[in-house]
Amino acid sequence: MSQADDPATGTVGDLGEFALIGRATAGRIHPPSVAIGPGDDAAVIAAPDSRVVVTTDMLVEGRHFRLDWSSHHDVGRKAIAQNAADIAAMGARCTGFLVSMSCPSTTAVSDVDALTAGLWAEATRVGASIVGGDVTGGDRLVLSITALGDLEGRPPVLRSGARPGDVLALSGPTGRSAAGWALYEAGSATYPDLLAAHRVPTPDPADGPAAARAGASSMCDVSDGVIGDAGHLSAMSAVRLDISAADMEIPEDVVQAGIELGVDPLHWALGGGEDHVLLATFASDDVPTGWRRIGSVSAGTGVTVDGVRWEGPAAWTSF
Amino acid sequence: MSQADDPATGTVGDLGEFALIGRATAGRIHPPSVAIGPGDDAAVIAAPDSRVVVTTDMLVEGRHFRLDWSSHHDVGRKAIAQNAADIAAMGARCTGFLVSMSCPSTTAVSDVDALTAGLWAEATRVGASIVGGDVTGGDRLVLSITALGDLEGRPPVLRSGARPGDVLALSGPTGRSAAGWALYEAGSATYPDLLAAHRVPTPDPADGPAAARAGASSMCDVSDGVIGDAGHLSAMSAVRLDISAADMEIPEDVVQAGIELGVDPLHWALGGGEDHVLLATFASDDVPTGWRRIGSVSAGTGVTVDGVRWEGPAAWTSF
Repeated sequence: MSQADDPATGTVGDLGEFALIGRATAGRIHPPSVAIGPGDDAAVIAAPDSRVVVTTDMLVEGRHFRLDWSSHHDVGRKAIAQNAADIAAMGARCTGFLVSMSCPSTTAVSDVDALTAGLWAEATRVGASIVGGDVTGGDRLVLSITALGDLEGRPPVLRSGARPGDVLALSGPTGRSAAGWALYEAGSATYPDLLAAHRVPTPDPADGPAAARAGASSMCDVSDGVIGDAGHLSAMSAVRLDISAADMEIPEDVVQAGIELGVDPLHWALGGGEDHVLLATFASDDVPTGWRRIGSVSAGTGVTVDGVRWEGPAAWTSF
Repeated sequence: MSQADDPATGTVGDLGEFALIGRATAGRIHPPSVAIGPGDDAAVIAAPDSRVVVTTDMLVEGRHFRLDWSSHHDVGRKAIAQNAADIAAMGARCTGFLVSMSCPSTTAVSDVDALTAGLWAEATRVGASIVGGDVTGGDRLVLSITALGDLEGRPPVLRSGARPGDVLALSGPTGRSAAGWALYEAGSATYPDLLAAHRVPTPDPADGPAAARAGASSMCDVSDGVIGDAGHLSAMSAVRLDISAADMEIPEDVVQAGIELGVDPLHWALGGGEDHVLLATFASDDVPTGWRRIGSVSAGTGVTVDGVRWEGPAAWTSF
């Protein structure tokens, strides 16, 4: 094929909607649970539990991601990862994703190919596939992801079930995405793992079902920051959550990045969002292996750190 | 409450994401099949068939709708209706919708309220509710809708099942949306029902399950126009579809609008999209009551009208 004939060197406008969908879907491998994949009016996927867990997020270029920091592949991966985390936060296993995309007709097909590869890579990593979607023109890149999940016979783990006497725990470290963001802002390339953690969070998709099996009483993923998300659990469970600062895990590279940038790394760990690890409450003996206790649940309202209301940076806002 | 304190007179930016979500979700009535509605990390809805049907569409202001023609209420209704039609086209019943919205922070809260009311009105009309979503800032209004459905124990009706000897049938008239569009373009207000049909299609949500019960061999909804959508059935079923022009239903107001604008109304009926009625094939004796036979299925490829390849206007393109 000559270069002039190779669609990968052209634009989305040259290629057209149907050929673009063909590139995104042709030859992809779906799990056996996908009865009908892309190409019909709708997809059909197994819901063995006879209930389906479903969530959606919209990502807007310049607001949720920056194409000067993140590759199209990264953007695709992160878009899937943050929706997968919402499924995990219910204690469910991901069963499928739908992806809608709006982009300018001048967008390079190679960029869309990279985005698609990232979407598929992360969907596959969490054990699922992309079963449908939509593409359309628009002024800038907008992605909308819907994730579906299965509860495998368990009750969903809600935000509202925390009880006084429970312990508060995290499935992994927080603040890595916020530290990476701060490094990008400062133009520093010193800690590539933190930059990567900001571009693409990679929580373990098994953590949500494991927490549910262990009897988690409430759970959410850390998208707004530990303080902000603890606030959601506190408000919806009508309990007080007290976080012990000394119990927060601060990875060594986050400590070092804090020194480089003159930031208390505890602020990233408590206030930074988008790590997409899980924050949950458990009866004291039920905390799963690999989780870290960071606090306690008591009667009352609100979130405190070492008994004091947190005065650090506010959570993410959409407007 | 003084006017200054009334959030309905303010903007989305004044109100903020969480209050906006609160206005869209508080006090809404969900069917009993919605186990967990909005407010947690994800929703949980019943999937009694142990399979879930799922589809998504993205609508961009200025491309899929015009706010000088359509009210925000209309836009909300149409966004749900076109996704509900994709569920119906599989022979399924709608069980829930998710809605993501991006809009400028300067958007009036009253406009979002009207949009939300339209979304809810149409979701309710088709027997379901809005179980989740996302709102975020952006340059212009972008909506992404995901619809879920249940097959009630039936096999899905695919695009690929048409067989030579079947008949081709429509669940309702086509061309009304296209006629309405042409009237808007011409600045005519002569046929308000056609203008309304363009703003909000209102197919009967029972048509899809009824067609499936009747044994439809293939089906899709008319979004790209009868010719374009028949082309999808033809290609995926590897059959030839021949449409009889004399059998197309042309409502009297469409005929009159054609005279006013100097357009052959058959072009609207065959080439116009967005009516979202259903196009299906059946064994000759199986066509359900209320459907209209418009053609036949034979061995071969492609779509013809009265035996001749159609040379009318092309279908909708996204770029």
